[in-house]
Amino acid sequence: MSKEITTRAQDYAQWYNDLVIKGELADYSAIRGCMVIKPYGYALWENMRDALDKMFKDTGHVNAYFPLFIPKSFLSREAAHVEGFAKECAVVTHYRLKMDENGGGLIVDPEAKLEEELIIRPTSETIIWNTYKDWIQSYRDLPLLINQWANVVRWEMRTRLFLRTAEFLWQEGHTAHATREEAVTEAEKMLEVYATFAEEFMALPVIRGKKTESERFAGAEETYCIEAMMQDGKALQAGTSHFLGQNFAKAFDVKFSNKDNQLDYVWATSWGVSTRLVGALVMAHSDDEGLILPPKIAPLQVVIIPIYKGDEQKAQIDKKANEITGNLKRLGVRVKYDDNDNNRPGWKFAEYEMKGVPVRLALGARDLEKNVVEVARRDTKEKKTVGLDGIAQYVDGLLLEIQHTLFNKAKTYQQEHITPADTWDQFEKLLDEKGGFVSAHWDGSAETEQAIKEKTKATIRCIPDNNKLENGTCILTGRPSSQRVLFARAY
Amino acid sequence: MSKEITTRAQDYAQWYNDLVIKGELADYSAIRGCMVIKPYGYALWENMRDALDKMFKDTGHVNAYFPLFIPKSFLSREAAHVEGFAKECAVVTHYRLKMDENGGGLIVDPEAKLEEELIIRPTSETIIWNTYKDWIQSYRDLPLLINQWANVVRWEMRTRLFLRTAEFLWQEGHTAHATREEAVTEAEKMLEVYATFAEEFMALPVIRGKKTESERFAGAEETYCIEAMMQDGKALQAGTSHFLGQNFAKAFDVKFSNKDNQLDYVWATSWGVSTRLVGALVMAHSDDEGLILPPKIAPLQVVIIPIYKGDEQKAQIDKKANEITGNLKRLGVRVKYDDNDNNRPGWKFAEYEMKGVPVRLALGARDLEKNVVEVARRDTKEKKTVGLDGIAQYVDGLLLEIQHTLFNKAKTYQQEHITPADTWDQFEKLLDEKGGFVSAHWDGSAETEQAIKEKTKATIRCIPDNNKLENGTCILTGRPSSQRVLFARAY
Repeated sequence: MSKEITTRAQDYAQWYNDLVIKGELADYSAIRGCMVIKPYGYALWENMRDALDKMFKDTGHVNAYFPLFIPKSFLSREAAHVEGFAKECAVVTHYRLKMDENGGGLIVDPEAKLEEELIIRPTSETIIWNTYKDWIQSYRDLPLLINQWANVVRWEMRTRLFLRTAEFLWQEGHTAHATREEAVTEAEKMLEVYATFAEEFMALPVIRGKKTESERFAGAEETYCIEAMMQDGKALQAGTSHFLGQNFAKAFDVKFSNKDNQLDYVWATSWGVSTRLVGALVMAHSDDEGLILPPKIAPLQVVIIPIYKGDEQKAQIDKKANEITGNLKRLGVRVKYDDNDNNRPGWKFAEYEMKGVPVRLALGARDLEKNVVEVARRDTKEKKTVGLDGIAQYVDGLLLEIQHTLFNKAKTYQQEHITPADTWDQFEKLLDEKGGFVSAHWDGSAETEQAIKEKTKATIRCIPDNNKLENGTCILTGRPSSQRVLFARAY
Repeated sequence: MSKEITTRAQDYAQWYNDLVIKGELADYSAIRGCMVIKPYGYALWENMRDALDKMFKDTGHVNAYFPLFIPKSFLSREAAHVEGFAKECAVVTHYRLKMDENGGGLIVDPEAKLEEELIIRPTSETIIWNTYKDWIQSYRDLPLLINQWANVVRWEMRTRLFLRTAEFLWQEGHTAHATREEAVTEAEKMLEVYATFAEEFMALPVIRGKKTESERFAGAEETYCIEAMMQDGKALQAGTSHFLGQNFAKAFDVKFSNKDNQLDYVWATSWGVSTRLVGALVMAHSDDEGLILPPKIAPLQVVIIPIYKGDEQKAQIDKKANEITGNLKRLGVRVKYDDNDNNRPGWKFAEYEMKGVPVRLALGARDLEKNVVEVARRDTKEKKTVGLDGIAQYVDGLLLEIQHTLFNKAKTYQQEHITPADTWDQFEKLLDEKGGFVSAHWDGSAETEQAIKEKTKATIRCIPDNNKLENGTCILTGRPSSQRVLFARAY
């Protein structure tokens, strides 16, 4: 097999890359840190995007589109924000190329220098709040519940397909509210939308919580997050929702007159998830034979492969396969009958295994005689001979079962990998040997958080929602602590 | 009314701008030449995008995503292409900002200069064909039928909302084929997809044809186009599809082994439409009271407005309005019941007229007693009292009728504004006084085309499909000509 992949045990990072490349989700590009999202990967992203978009709209949000460019001066307006993003900005300085008169080929025209440099948006709070200034005068203009699907650029030094790329696709919600309470509620609501999406569509169990101050978004007063766990025990931040207070309203002077006709600054949230989720999906469920995709978002849910000798058998199988395909499509199932005769059945089996298609039907001449078909699940690799009568309903039900099985398996793994540590030795050993989330007391200081990170490479992933309060002592400093937080090494 | 708009007779260009701004489709932004697409305008674009996307997929295409950045050297590879785009490129030269040590604030870090400048894609042929090189080895890898939805940047000097902006949203199809014939067929097929979309969804009649050599896309061997006519008689290019020959395959060395195991360069097409179509839509149908949107793509198709005194009347109307709303939604109609009591009915009437909502139902207490409702069409401004029994079906049918009425009206206008000219005097007079397309003989030379453009500002919009061959003499030079072409002043 030319498509052999590295196993997880051999090299987890290489296994991941093999899956992305050989599963045809994405490819490297000629531009440092940028990837090409291939049709199969993009179809997966489209399914994720459409499900999220519907959830946003069902919760009262509308889409809009703001410019790709941010004037350099906008970034400086919010102190924490510029600190967070200035170091990784793609900067546009000129607006024209020309042929060098001295034969140097195509060059940047020095006469076409911009008066003010433009930054490719790394996130759009600044340009959006500069716009909201014109849109908001009165409490009647609030709330603004706007989302944008867009590309953004962060010039990361170390990149990995989907997980960390210089350019990535995402959505960013930016809402404006009359009161602090309403903005906080919005930020919490959108985190719950993300959590529901991750669990119900991606079959990815997540921990809901808050970031510590030092892990907050640059410019936020509170960052809510969902944290997922990968099969190597590392954490992956799967979505964040920020309560921005009045920081951006103050930076861009966005005031409104409230019901008492008094001027006040507007309250803000922002929230986003990105193509990074595709990376999370790959790492959460897949195995050493290839991708395993949850049925709800798999580009292709069912593949039917004919096994035959000669045209007569083929014709009979075609007829039945087309009937099954039609029935499945009527149930809304994404199905393909692959009767391409360039490839043999064994090659196709491996190919669709690699691509993580949840259900495979192999239909042979002898099966037809017996009125049965072989049904194979990608997740458990179980094969079963099933009667052809009512096969479409059977498969439709099986897709739902696979979705649940994937979630439950990941949930069990997650639960088994949240481990308390009460001593530093335990803490280090857990991180090094078992992995996963380590639940430990922390004294609440940024210094301790930083020291732990330097010693172990583990960060505080979150302070979980509904966290149990209990007295304890900090895992590193021994100082008093009132609750445990979740530490992990993370993507 | 604060929302009064300039009439077409007063100032057509200002009328257009007023509609876009006051109809809340888009807004100016802080960045020169870039616009903000507001939620209402974006919802319109989403409906257009989704309809097109379905047509692309139904014709066998898949979506993918390629990088925003194009290395400068890629642009130079195809001579005509660089000539066409070099003068309007946004150029990224650096990847980091920093705080000036001398107190100059946030500056571009001179140490973070890119080795090779990156261009923000003005179109993606170069980066895509550089990628296709890795994806295509054999005829078995062909055809590649890939589309991308993306933002692109062309640093235009004179910009207008939607019609010409520095950044715009579009789709660009890029296909690769084993034979010239197959590529030509693809380019023609996609032009027909665009024409069908324009006519069936946008209610915008178009002329299908080919561009002259000097109006072709930079790098194309043939450019097919659809040309629409605006209410001021000016033409607007509404979509183009290019047969690229082997130009990009040669520039990026993309060869494949054919069935006879011989190496040959791959044949290419590209095709695109953009948010410019929103501008075309606005100008094609709207009137001096505001937008008129075709039902098939209108964000909101029906609005129901209650007219009442007191809570008791309101409660009765609410009940009926919710029933109608439910019935319309079940028919797939996009409907809103606007019972916001901050605004009076008259204000709402004007507002939804401005926004071009195709059908308005005004429901009063007396109407309820009589079991009727007032139905107003936005396009003809006709009002009619209609029985409430079966009102949803009635409205659903009316939406279809409005769609047809809009198309027929625009088609009649178009037909009445295609006028033959046989002398230069006629030609100039038609352009100055009547406008529209002038059908005239042309000697086929680029020099004549250029001379006519300089004298009249009119360009050859296209050589129409199925053009009648007839002997004649060039409108400017008197040289022999075998067919008429369509001239117009254009957006």
